[in-house]
Amino acid sequence: MNLTHIEHLGIAVNSLETAIPYYESVLGLKCYAVEEVAEQRVKTAFFKIGQTKIELLESTDPEGPVGKFIEKKGEGIHHIAFAVEGLQETLNMVAEKGVILIDKSPRKGAEGLNIAFLHPKSTFGVLTELCEDPNK
Amino acid sequence: MNLTHIEHLGIAVNSLETAIPYYESVLGLKCYAVEEVAEQRVKTAFFKIGQTKIELLESTDPEGPVGKFIEKKGEGIHHIAFAVEGLQETLNMVAEKGVILIDKSPRKGAEGLNIAFLHPKSTFGVLTELCEDPNK
Repeated sequence: MNLTHIEHLGIAVNSLETAIPYYESVLGLKCYAVEEVAEQRVKTAFFKIGQTKIELLESTDPEGPVGKFIEKKGEGIHHIAFAVEGLQETLNMVAEKGVILIDKSPRKGAEGLNIAFLHPKSTFGVLTELCEDPNK
Repeated sequence: MNLTHIEHLGIAVNSLETAIPYYESVLGLKCYAVEEVAEQRVKTAFFKIGQTKIELLESTDPEGPVGKFIEKKGEGIHHIAFAVEGLQETLNMVAEKGVILIDKSPRKGAEGLNIAFLHPKSTFGVLTELCEDPNK
């Protein structure tokens, strides 16, 4: 697999409204976009640091994936997303090596990326997203 | 604060021996160093991806910080480390803004970096490390 960099880190927060000021005024990052991803039942806020984005995730539904995560584990780092080229081929390859796929084929994520998640049971506890930019 | 990039991500695993092959043969990253950090009661394994390192953490003591983390939350992403310049000044600045410091002044971490941790209670659930390279 050709992983070039960490595309983003997903961080679950109770409220974008209270978390964004910490990232801006304490860490000095700039929120450049807020976007709702209805399918994932989250509102997201994006910051850039070097090659990597930080994606804050506020749940819009207690039964959604981020709502359940916060109920179980509290606020914190939710997932890591790697940038890859050839996402479908990569999914086939990791599945052959025993990784459990949450998404067997790519779907649309935030910022127009094609994305797929790997199950943390097969990735040593790390919910892992693979992202491909369709415009590259 | 001038954060330039994500220096590393710390990921708690039960066993380096079983986790390293996943990072190498599935994700295609190369483990370039294994180091014990006695003070933190961990063995660490390092990988590089773009600007960022992945630091796997195996606890050497159930009462150590990573041992307790795994007991409470299971394997998974443990902390995020940002590269900064002027670590002591940065700690003073974030403390003034209400962040709780785990380390009031820098101490030595893996790879010879000066490091300090911020308490997750004051950083929206994210155990946050600030790192300064003393050779830069």
